[in-house]
Parts: sequence; C-alpha cells; structure tokens
Amino acid sequence: MDLHILDHRLRVTSISKSGLEQYTHPLIKLIFLRNRTRCKFFSLTETPENYTVVLDEEGFKELQPSEHLQVEGSTWLPLNVVSNGNASSSSQAVGVTKIAKSVIAPLAEQHVSVFMLSTYQTDFILVREKDLAVVVETLAEEFNVFREEGGESVPVHSQDACNGLQRNGREVPHATVHPVLIPENHFCVMSLDPDTLPAIATTLIDVLFYSNRSKEDASVDQDMECIVFFSFSLIDGYISLVMDTEAQRQFPTDLLFTSSSGELWRMVRIGGQPLGFDECGIVAQISQPLADSDISAYYISTFSFDHALVPEEDLASVTEMLQTQRMSS
Amino acid sequence: MDLHILDHRLRVTSISKSGLEQYTHPLIKLIFLRNRTRCKFFSLTETPENYTVVLDEEGFKELQPSEHLQVEGSTWLPLNVVSNGNASSSSQAVGVTKIAKSVIAPLAEQHVSVFMLSTYQTDFILVREKDLAVVVETLAEEFNVFREEGGESVPVHSQDACNGLQRNGREVPHATVHPVLIPENHFCVMSLDPDTLPAIATTLIDVLFYSNRSKEDASVDQDMECIVFFSFSLIDGYISLVMDTEAQRQFPTDLLFTSSSGELWRMVRIGGQPLGFDECGIVAQISQPLADSDISAYYISTFSFDHALVPEEDLASVTEMLQTQRMSS
Repeated sequence: MDLHILDHRLRVTSISKSGLEQYTHPLIKLIFLRNRTRCKFFSLTETPENYTVVLDEEGFKELQPSEHLQVEGSTWLPLNVVSNGNASSSSQAVGVTKIAKSVIAPLAEQHVSVFMLSTYQTDFILVREKDLAVVVETLAEEFNVFREEGGESVPVHSQDACNGLQRNGREVPHATVHPVLIPENHFCVMSLDPDTLPAIATTLIDVLFYSNRSKEDASVDQDMECIVFFSFSLIDGYISLVMDTEAQRQFPTDLLFTSSSGELWRMVRIGGQPLGFDECGIVAQISQPLADSDISAYYISTFSFDHALVPEEDLASVTEMLQTQRMSS
Repeated sequence: MDLHILDHRLRVTSISKSGLEQYTHPLIKLIFLRNRTRCKFFSLTETPENYTVVLDEEGFKELQPSEHLQVEGSTWLPLNVVSNGNASSSSQAVGVTKIAKSVIAPLAEQHVSVFMLSTYQTDFILVREKDLAVVVETLAEEFNVFREEGGESVPVHSQDACNGLQRNGREVPHATVHPVLIPENHFCVMSLDPDTLPAIATTLIDVLFYSNRSKEDASVDQDMECIVFFSFSLIDGYISLVMDTEAQRQFPTDLLFTSSSGELWRMVRIGGQPLGFDECGIVAQISQPLADSDISAYYISTFSFDHALVPEEDLASVTEMLQTQRMSS
C-alpha cells in the first residue's frame, strides 16, 4: 500500500460558539466561494463546545486573530493511505479501521500524536510537521511513502526524512483510558457534487450559522440525549458532510448522497475533559479493538474531543468492548 | 387614487464599507433566512460610500450597535400609492414620475423630508413618523388615505391625524440645487421569485459581500466612469434588485426577470456632499421636470446621496433639463 504525504500545510483552530458570528464572512468565503480563495483544505466541525476549523495556510490567512479564535501552535500535514488494488487485507470494513494496525498503532507506539479526520472519501491522518521524520521512518516498514509536491508524487525514503534523527523509544505508551459518551443521534456520512453546492447554500448556511440547536430541543424527550455535531469539509474539491438525521431532513433529498448501503452511524465521543493535542494513542485505543472485530468506523478529531462513528448494528459489541477496556484498565 | 400608510416602522441606517464583514451574519439572515426573522421590510444598497440599510424594527434588532453602524434618529413610515384602475393620468411613465406632482411636490411644499425607495414592484415614499399628520393632511386633498394595520386597510381622515396640529407654511422651499453625477454604467431593475432566491444565493452573497469592486476596474478605460451601486430589497415577500449590467452578467439569466421592455437605465446621482436627511425638495427638484416631460424614473435615496434612474434614450433630454435648472438657479 502507498502512503501519501499530501501537499497541504494545515492549522488546527477553534472558534468559540459566541465568536461564530464574527467569523461568518471568512467562513462563507471558504465554503462557498472557491474562486475567491486559494484554500484547498477546509474542514469545519461543530460540537457542543466550539467549532473546530482545520485549514491550510491560504485559508488560515482569512481568519483574523481574536479572543474567539484558538490556534494550535503546530503545522500539521495530512497523510492518506491509498490501497493500490493489491491490498492483502480481506477486511470489508471502511474508515479508520482499515488503517488501525498499519498506521494508527505504529504511530502511537512512536509517541506521535495524530489528529484524525475521516471524510466520505477517505481518512486523513494529520501529524505534526516536526514529527514527519519519525512518521516516515515508522511507516516506511509497511508502506511506499510518497510526498505530493505541486501535483507530483515523489517517493520518500526514510533516511531522507530522518537523517540523523533519533527514533523515539519503542515502548507502548501507557495510555489513559478516557470516559466515553454515546449520544442517541443517528448520523450519516454524505457527499455532494461540488457543482451543486450552491443549491444547498442557504440550507447549509442556516444549519451551520443560525441553527444554534440548543440542548432544550433534546430535553423534550428526557430519554434522548442528542449531541450537536455537524461536520463539513471541502478538500481538494471533494465535499464531505457528517450530520445527524435531524439535520439531514433539512436538506433536499436528491442532492446529497451516501454510500449505497445508506447506513446510519452512532457516535462514541471520547474524552470527559478536553483531550488536548499531545496525548498519543487515543485513536489507537478505539480503533484497535474495532479492527480486531472488523467493525467499520469513521473518526473525527476536534479541538476538544474525539469522535468515532460506528455502524448502528455494531453498537452493542462496541459498547461491550469499551466496557471491557475500561474495567481492565 | 389611494395612498396607503404601510404597517412598517422603519429605521434608516448605514454600515461602513470596512464594517460590512462584521454585519455579514445578520444581513445574510435578513436576506436569505425568512424563517429565522420576522423582518418584513429590508433594503440594502451599496454605494461607493457605504451600505444603506433600511429595515423595520424586527430587522433593526439584528444589527448590533458599533462604530461601523450609523442610524438616522427617526422612525420612518413607508407610503405607497395604489392606482385603483380609474386613474385619470394618461402618463405611460413608471416610477417616481407618476407621483411627482401628486405626492412629492406637495410634501416638498410642506417642508416634509422624504426618503425614496423605488423597487421593481412599486415606489415607497418614506416619511418621518412625526411628520405623519402633516403628510396625511397634505395628501388627503388628492388621495383616499388608508393606514394598514394588521392586514386591514383603515381609512384615515386628515382630522384624525393632525388634530390640533399646525400645518406648515405653504411657501415653496428655496431648494439648493445640488451637483449631479452621471456615471457610465447601465442599470437594470429586476425581480425574482422568492422561492428561487436560494438558487442565486451564492452569487448574491459574492456580489454583496465579497466583490469589493474597486475603482481600478473602471480606470482601465479612462473614459468610463462607473459607479458601484447595487440594491437588494425584500419587502413583504417581494424581491427587487437594481444592478448594473456588469453585475447582472454574474447571475443566471433564467431566474431574474425585468419588465418586458427590458430597458436599461442610466443614473443621475444627486449631491456633491452628503445630503443629510433634513433638506426637503431634493426629490421634487428632479422628479418635477421629469414628470413635465413624462420621463419614467426610479429613485433610490441612500444615506449619503440620492439616485435617479432614467431610461437610456431619455438621458440627453434629462441632461439638458438639469443643465437648464443649474444655469437658472
């Protein structure tokens, strides 16, 4: 399999809930007006805490500093695994599960923090630019590594990247087991032809900037604990949307598409307290057991918490798995 | 003919060019998200100086005070002339010309300031609420006056309105003759089915919030002195757009419609210095001679200047008329 280091230098930022209004102008530009920006990697995820915005340097220029904008200090690079047809894996699973053992686990062992961003099209593994040498050396064992530069894929050899660099120790990190939350919403992972984006513009603007779905909506039914979660990304011209079925009902049914199985996903939110960016092994902790059971999963990191999406029908076994993990820790 | 005092209490405001970004959130809500606001009267006009926003009290609540927002101190009421079929006028002219002698001139004689807002559908004459008694008494001579209240049209008799109120003197105000500017752009006055507004949302957002059409564009051709002018209004569910042919080219051709004659309009901008809101007779000064020659005209007041739009083919006679006026003053 091939691993591509994509040609984007990313910043991971967070806009406070009350600051969204102030950032409406640049965000609408980045989402809808492709001719007005050179940003090629843009992702916006609303959670109850804030809006996580991951974007390249061209996009980042659009965000004026303010008390409402938090910026993680590093530059992050997105990695992408490309199965080139002869993959030996017999797994039918999709998402982060496919790369749990080949990418996530080895990086966790090397104490490399990752920020995951699953989309409809693929799963991006974001690593800090300063960790690149370790990443390349670690993953070169399993992958042909390429660096994309100006449209070309250039092979990278581990010695190129980690020349003179000490590899981190090989011990498995003693990861904290974080509490998880399993909200009641059902999610779909969808896409959209970029040319039809204008047709859903007002709905998308409404949902992203004006919905302010409060917890009161959920408290109508006391048994139902729903979470506010909506993710939009526009990366290299591809659009991905993750939303719950309630939000989905607001969109025209004929424009958004999902995988043919049309499955619904349940969320496992990881973290009782904001996770920060330095802890390693959080993704590994969830994705390893999922991979062992060949359960598909999308995985979306945000500024404060991590979010795994698993198929509705696998939720019972995932819950059991997580309970076992928590009892044994 | 009937004169209706519409059921809207309006504020006339101005957003500075540099402040637009900060007001993008409320403005997009007011323009596109009808379900999220109870605002029923909204008008936004971009000029080189600023953005004039005229809106009712529900809409005004959405605009947070800031250094970028100027608010005229009064409450304004929109008047609307309804020809009820038996109008004796043989005029084929449209727009403000039709009401020049019956409304504009008498109000000017009574020293009542008006703020005009022509749209595709009709011409709104805004008067200050405090002038209402004088307005009703003045216009009751020519019109059946109705006040719209909660969907009902209630007849108003002049004694109801101006009980015990002194009428202003009857002398014709000695109006300043203001310089005029006739830019080279050609304008169209258009409308749109509100249900198709979402289909032009990204284009309209682009033009309104991101175009920043600079004077450099115009200076490419030194002979061509174009003005930045774009007006959008959404009033009682009706949309009106005034834009130049350059802006028009950005919109899909099948959604916006104009009158069957499809005529193009030229602008006469009135005022060398900002006009303010207290001077009377500015509209009368332009509209009277146009009415004498039965030349159609739209008229759009903004925070700083007034703008008449006249048919391209009448521009020569209008120019001559204005020159005569200026030489004789």
